[in-house]
Amino acid sequence: MHSHHHHTKTPAPAADLARGSTLYLGADDIVRLVRRKGLPACLAGVAGRIEQDFLRWPEWDKSARVACHSRDGVIELMPVADAAQFAFKYVNGHPKNTAAGLPTVMAFGLLADVATGTPQLLAEMTLVTAIRTAAMSALAAKRLARPDSRVMALVGNGAQSEFQALAFRDVVGIRELRQFDVDPQATAKLVANLAGQGLELTVCTSVAEAVRGADIVTTVTADKTRATILTPEMLEPGMHVNGVGGDCPGKTELHPGVLEAASVFVEYEPQTRIEGDLQQMPADFPVTEFWRVLNRSHPGRRAADEVTVFDSVGFALEDLSALAFVHEAATALGVGRRIDLVAQPQDPKNLFGLLHGDDDTAAAPRRAQPVEA
Amino acid sequence: MHSHHHHTKTPAPAADLARGSTLYLGADDIVRLVRRKGLPACLAGVAGRIEQDFLRWPEWDKSARVACHSRDGVIELMPVADAAQFAFKYVNGHPKNTAAGLPTVMAFGLLADVATGTPQLLAEMTLVTAIRTAAMSALAAKRLARPDSRVMALVGNGAQSEFQALAFRDVVGIRELRQFDVDPQATAKLVANLAGQGLELTVCTSVAEAVRGADIVTTVTADKTRATILTPEMLEPGMHVNGVGGDCPGKTELHPGVLEAASVFVEYEPQTRIEGDLQQMPADFPVTEFWRVLNRSHPGRRAADEVTVFDSVGFALEDLSALAFVHEAATALGVGRRIDLVAQPQDPKNLFGLLHGDDDTAAAPRRAQPVEA
Repeated sequence: MHSHHHHTKTPAPAADLARGSTLYLGADDIVRLVRRKGLPACLAGVAGRIEQDFLRWPEWDKSARVACHSRDGVIELMPVADAAQFAFKYVNGHPKNTAAGLPTVMAFGLLADVATGTPQLLAEMTLVTAIRTAAMSALAAKRLARPDSRVMALVGNGAQSEFQALAFRDVVGIRELRQFDVDPQATAKLVANLAGQGLELTVCTSVAEAVRGADIVTTVTADKTRATILTPEMLEPGMHVNGVGGDCPGKTELHPGVLEAASVFVEYEPQTRIEGDLQQMPADFPVTEFWRVLNRSHPGRRAADEVTVFDSVGFALEDLSALAFVHEAATALGVGRRIDLVAQPQDPKNLFGLLHGDDDTAAAPRRAQPVEA
Repeated sequence: MHSHHHHTKTPAPAADLARGSTLYLGADDIVRLVRRKGLPACLAGVAGRIEQDFLRWPEWDKSARVACHSRDGVIELMPVADAAQFAFKYVNGHPKNTAAGLPTVMAFGLLADVATGTPQLLAEMTLVTAIRTAAMSALAAKRLARPDSRVMALVGNGAQSEFQALAFRDVVGIRELRQFDVDPQATAKLVANLAGQGLELTVCTSVAEAVRGADIVTTVTADKTRATILTPEMLEPGMHVNGVGGDCPGKTELHPGVLEAASVFVEYEPQTRIEGDLQQMPADFPVTEFWRVLNRSHPGRRAADEVTVFDSVGFALEDLSALAFVHEAATALGVGRRIDLVAQPQDPKNLFGLLHGDDDTAAAPRRAQPVEA
């Protein structure tokens, strides 16, 4: 095999690249891509994609997610498709992983061409999930919050908080943040990360203090229980609540009274009734799917003093929108490389022949090639 | 970025390998692995894995497959899990792909650790699917066919036929093949591929001629319609029928009278009632799940003159068994390389920090490294 090792240092023949039909973006590639594109451009770009894709809501095949529950966590597959694109995300949730030095959530996704079934993009999705979640939240607030909203309370200052802050800055026009976390170190990290980003930052010592006077309240806490982060007496007329952390069965952030006092908007109703803060409410509690606001079949906010809630849980279509954005950006910037995730044998009828073909083409060592010029 | 390009030619630091937690086996890697291990060892090894995994049948979470149907084909996700392992296979079916020079079926699979959700293996699965299908068929025949079976009719001489032939040679003891295909070129390819493999080969000019006198009849045709390849008058007392090609809605090979005349065994009853030759039969037509034969709760074949049918459609557990075999073999032989399919940031609470960290660790060009010594 040693005679082939020089291939790893020389350009791959065209035939090799042609065999690799799938663009691969690993964790490092995604970091490079977001750095080169710029996080603001990624947030705005993904928000734009989500808006376009949600406007075609009835065209999407909205399968239920497949969840495999085990003692210490869950592994899920989240598929979605229309007549042109298929996508799924693999994502786990294992709260005890931190003790083993592993992330509690790991994710990757695939984008495929529906016409032929060919996988087009395989991408790591931890960073991409944070971006698409913030983009979705900001897109919803752009339509549901008062247009003059400038102050946002940010309750929960963990891994997703910076992404929420920057998406709301760029998409909604937020200029002042009032942040609180039960862990002061989390808040200190957020303040350090957002320095010089054009946001006025106010560290608060309670949820109530952070919420007071805010136009928008974003809750993005990580407590895996039925918590009551936001209570009805904290609400002020005209507030928009962006509830992000209540996103799976048994995990809520909003007091039921908050939902009762508000007009509630969701991504995909059947999913949010199980996973969202909505899980606390009766099955007939009225909600509106957000795509109806986008296509103007629902007015969204009706008055300046109305309280609106976006009960966000994260829907598979947002992952497809984000993967499509990432695919386009990576192709334009030449980030990533092609891999042979699926075989495309010269003669599909002679699969056995693969095992007895020319050693140089079929059994040579991997020749990984960045597509970057 | 050019200052980093030398990394592609030097060994990766340990930290980089540690970050890549998933073993990747592309199409070329799988070919290399099967060549080095040897196809007979792969067929026997996968059959052994399937047997062990089927013996633990009640322990598996047998989710329905997720199917996304479109005008020209279908894309499916086939998940399965127990308390230790999660696996899924992505597989498409697009009959018109051949016109575009693409395979009609492309597949890849993932094996993950249920305790932490970490993806362990990502592997191309075209060849692996052929191996696991043949291994499953041979394992079933070993228990259901007469022990003195030596002659097999092989009807349908396409991509899967060689794998069926060799699995039955090694696992069941078949010594003579009687092959037929409507396409003489397919049969010629089969004969050429099986030369020197210790099997007596007889080319037949009709299904009836191939079946006459055979102990086992394997049907593995590709016609995407309700075909009637095997009819009741061709049956002889004591035959075992291995029906492989009737494997999705609208695609059958066996005349209903063949099923009526036989004891019928299936992988997973709810799936086979929809996808197998069984789709032609009433909902209460009696069948036995094969795992019951393996664990001796069903006797299997009851008499030397009984006709038995294994109505094979391919179940997700077989893919998990095959992926587990491949994972062990690739690790032992050092085939493949680790990829960063999921991010494992040093500080999961500071995802934003990834975008502003040390260029050398987070944004360096990909350093693909074969794990092979």
